Amino acid sequence: MTRQASWVESANSATHPFPLNNLPYGVFSRNGDDPVCGVAIGDMVLDLSVLEAENLIPTTEDGPVFDLPFLNEFMELGQEAWAELRARLSDLLAEGGDGALSGNPDLIERALVPMEDVTMHMPFVVAEYTDFYAGKQHAINVGTMFRGAENALPPNWLHIPIGYNGRASSVVVSGTDLHRPLGQLKPPHEEVPHFGPSRRMDIELELGAVVGTGSILGEPITTSGADEMIFGYVLLNDWSSRDIQGWEYQPLGPFQGKAFGTSISPWVVTKAALEPFRCETPPREKELLPYLQESKPGLYDIELEVTMQPEGADRATTICRTNYNRMYYSAAQQLTHHAVGGCEMTTGDLLGSGTISGPEKTEFGSLLEQSWGGKEPFTLDTGEERTFIEDFDRLTLKGQAKGDGYTIGFGECTGRILPAVQEPDWSK
Amino acid sequence: MTRQASWVESANSATHPFPLNNLPYGVFSRNGDDPVCGVAIGDMVLDLSVLEAENLIPTTEDGPVFDLPFLNEFMELGQEAWAELRARLSDLLAEGGDGALSGNPDLIERALVPMEDVTMHMPFVVAEYTDFYAGKQHAINVGTMFRGAENALPPNWLHIPIGYNGRASSVVVSGTDLHRPLGQLKPPHEEVPHFGPSRRMDIELELGAVVGTGSILGEPITTSGADEMIFGYVLLNDWSSRDIQGWEYQPLGPFQGKAFGTSISPWVVTKAALEPFRCETPPREKELLPYLQESKPGLYDIELEVTMQPEGADRATTICRTNYNRMYYSAAQQLTHHAVGGCEMTTGDLLGSGTISGPEKTEFGSLLEQSWGGKEPFTLDTGEERTFIEDFDRLTLKGQAKGDGYTIGFGECTGRILPAVQEPDWSK
Repeated sequence: MTRQASWVESANSATHPFPLNNLPYGVFSRNGDDPVCGVAIGDMVLDLSVLEAENLIPTTEDGPVFDLPFLNEFMELGQEAWAELRARLSDLLAEGGDGALSGNPDLIERALVPMEDVTMHMPFVVAEYTDFYAGKQHAINVGTMFRGAENALPPNWLHIPIGYNGRASSVVVSGTDLHRPLGQLKPPHEEVPHFGPSRRMDIELELGAVVGTGSILGEPITTSGADEMIFGYVLLNDWSSRDIQGWEYQPLGPFQGKAFGTSISPWVVTKAALEPFRCETPPREKELLPYLQESKPGLYDIELEVTMQPEGADRATTICRTNYNRMYYSAAQQLTHHAVGGCEMTTGDLLGSGTISGPEKTEFGSLLEQSWGGKEPFTLDTGEERTFIEDFDRLTLKGQAKGDGYTIGFGECTGRILPAVQEPDWSK
Repeated sequence: MTRQASWVESANSATHPFPLNNLPYGVFSRNGDDPVCGVAIGDMVLDLSVLEAENLIPTTEDGPVFDLPFLNEFMELGQEAWAELRARLSDLLAEGGDGALSGNPDLIERALVPMEDVTMHMPFVVAEYTDFYAGKQHAINVGTMFRGAENALPPNWLHIPIGYNGRASSVVVSGTDLHRPLGQLKPPHEEVPHFGPSRRMDIELELGAVVGTGSILGEPITTSGADEMIFGYVLLNDWSSRDIQGWEYQPLGPFQGKAFGTSISPWVVTKAALEPFRCETPPREKELLPYLQESKPGLYDIELEVTMQPEGADRATTICRTNYNRMYYSAAQQLTHHAVGGCEMTTGDLLGSGTISGPEKTEFGSLLEQSWGGKEPFTLDTGEERTFIEDFDRLTLKGQAKGDGYTIGFGECTGRILPAVQEPDWSK
């Protein structure tokens, strides 16, 4: 696969995140209009609601699916509809393709909007959010810190893609700042918990798989079926409060330590765009049960980066560079496990991969690992030291897959941690 | 408070679950029509969509809220609208009240439907489902079984209403049968996990709090505010697979052991109907942090019962009788804790109380406790023995609050466990 040329000139670069090969979907608004669905091409956003109204792209019997502030209706149509639209958009946007758009200046004016003029929104309504724990190096690092190297990996880890249900209502789009959460804290040296703002604020570098089509209550799915259900992927920052989490998580798992916010990138990169970058999961250390075995490679070669920028700093520091191919379990395996007991999966379900970390410290995808539980501060390019996040620090995730003369970019997933809100009068 | 008399004769009994004092909301259909919202009165269901179309009850500017297959639109209106409708319905249904309905035989014919002729549906769209662990006797029982009596209660238990996020997509209405889930099982004597149907199927007797109005991302709420957000309560059976749960739940909590189904009763009993039955939580063993302290009693005196009936048995056996007043934390405290870090709570959120157990074995709200981890089989009235659920066993929860000459009933929450489905060909 090489770069496909578009008449949208800005898309024709080896390094631009949104060439014709990509065509990621998102929800945007301009000039205060209602948000609608669009696709990124070079420095522009193509308004799919306009193309739909003009009958230039396939339409559904049930009415418009793009003149809506979420992609769910389109996602629900399934992989044939996804493939059909992708083929049509490729033709409309290709150099020398169908001229219905490229040859119509008035339509271009209405449908093609400079990205710098739009506001991006949540790309889909998150039905439910599940977070996994499928990065082996991350599990080993965290396990070593909390249980010692001998017991680092829980006994079930090599058999189950461990996951827990997260909170969908607090998933936000990139650019949304979040307040440092208030909560119960009990440092090891204190007898009883106290209440206050978290002091150990962290990120988790993850990729999010977006479920396009659902399953049926009571019916398991296969890994092949699961892969077909996945619409695409986003960058995902599973913001975490390590001190709230540390006191609350036994015996039933993370709760308020993870509930104040989870950020995703605004563009959903489709499975089709990522197809050339598929790669195998690492060799199995223990054979998986048949239901988790994959018939095709389930990971992707996607380079990932995390930067941190304190307030007022003139530049961001890269604190982590790693790759999605580090994961031990694929999203298809996670989705299969999620439904194996009959749990109904639905359009808009979001599955976080789990923190992605590689073997070297430069590849650790959380500050907990970077600072080894807060014991080893690291230094930013500005000379400032950090263990966890300080107020107004900006954290940004980036991702890209590098093809032959082109790039499939995810854009970025960024946000700042603001100071905690004032405590209310609890007696009111 | 004494019994309020209605011209719907069947409602005027000291033991009927749906007297005028109750007026629980649900969603029903008749003769294959689309489901709509209704209210239970005696042996009848009052079709609120008909009253709304006739302008006999308050309407909204945004259009009908009852000609819908869910209560969410009405729930979202908030407590003033809830109080206003309750007052109006009480007047329309009271003996000697407004005659607009009682004096109009044609309207009665259209709006009042025998309960035996309707099908009940899920009363609301579950936004997200959270399950708590707030019954102290249950936590002690389970903790004693798994960690010994010395370490029964986790260190955080008396400080935090411990909860975890469950799965909303598999919440079903009473009457829905569920398949025994397939999953990974690793009995203690086996070296590696195998795959198959759960062998340790259980129930959890719970009350579910239904969130009517939401909160704002980033903003904590108080216990008073939380109480105002709650629309009402349902019976809730948090079906559990103990063997799947046992192998999966460390370190991040229950997942597939709880994801195959959660049943709720079809009628949402309002906070207003339960008001006379409010009672205090038990004395605190450790002082709670201020954010969790309640300014008014947060529990209710609700008698609860669980029955079990094997296939072909001519009667059900009562295996548990207890009371919601056994809980250590109220729903308002749970909701407050849920939002304390800024987690946005939304209309339709469902909060399971946690398993309700009293100090005696007759009050244990799960089979895990009744059979003490499967070690002590119990005998049903039919002579059959049980430790966990066998295929086709019917489990039913019942609940009622007893007033002066009247009863506030919850109806029932029932379901059977069907055999596991056939394993698919995993390679397909």
